[in-house]
Amino acid sequence: MSAQAPGAASWLDAVKWSADGLVPAIAQDAASGKVLTLAWMNREALALTASTREVHYWSRSRRALWRKGESSGHVQKVRELRLDCDGDAVLVLVDPVGGIACHTGRERCFYRQLDGERWIGTDPVLKDPKAIYGHD
Amino acid sequence: MSAQAPGAASWLDAVKWSADGLVPAIAQDAASGKVLTLAWMNREALALTASTREVHYWSRSRRALWRKGESSGHVQKVRELRLDCDGDAVLVLVDPVGGIACHTGRERCFYRQLDGERWIGTDPVLKDPKAIYGHD
Repeated sequence: MSAQAPGAASWLDAVKWSADGLVPAIAQDAASGKVLTLAWMNREALALTASTREVHYWSRSRRALWRKGESSGHVQKVRELRLDCDGDAVLVLVDPVGGIACHTGRERCFYRQLDGERWIGTDPVLKDPKAIYGHD
Repeated sequence: MSAQAPGAASWLDAVKWSADGLVPAIAQDAASGKVLTLAWMNREALALTASTREVHYWSRSRRALWRKGESSGHVQKVRELRLDCDGDAVLVLVDPVGGIACHTGRERCFYRQLDGERWIGTDPVLKDPKAIYGHD
């Protein structure tokens, strides 16, 4: 009864995919409650996120499926997957391996805060991106 | 020095607006940490959100500026505005008046959780939408 092809499940049809087949996905740290990242998923990414319990995104710039942490090691383990009232946004509660979600080496991508008329960085770089991604 | 027209401020230029002039905005309850809503802002909505300290969105379906709570009373008071590393997503920490963010009368829009292969509602309706929006 459950021998469906990956991505064929009907729960995926409850998602209102955009014209280009994507849905915005918010990753939130399940322990701290901090919002880490907003990224995008296609149908395959969401199906894999649910089945592997590791967050997968669709990279709009690279036009490629992207298992979060595949190069950085900063995998996001899935605790809970949620869908909003309109079916056009996904929320994933995660345990972020290594405590870093952002490619800049910070805990979260939302590290800038509006202060009067300017954005100021409030969060420290925890690890040099060169050390995260290597280079040679 | 600060006699700029609304929406002319340079901090708005740090946002990478989509081709249709929008940015996704996440509203998070500043007290509980719950993610309430993902909606969209245009430049005017974000400028007004910052200047009035009440969240404004752009309704894609109605193609109109929308002060959150204008018909429901469920205004979202701004505590903190954040921008992500790529400048293409906004996070707003809010105090949600009335404790209801969703048009279905629930605390948050993300009231459905994936359980195996189906989405199940986990959050109660706190107030009948008919009572929120009136009808006569």
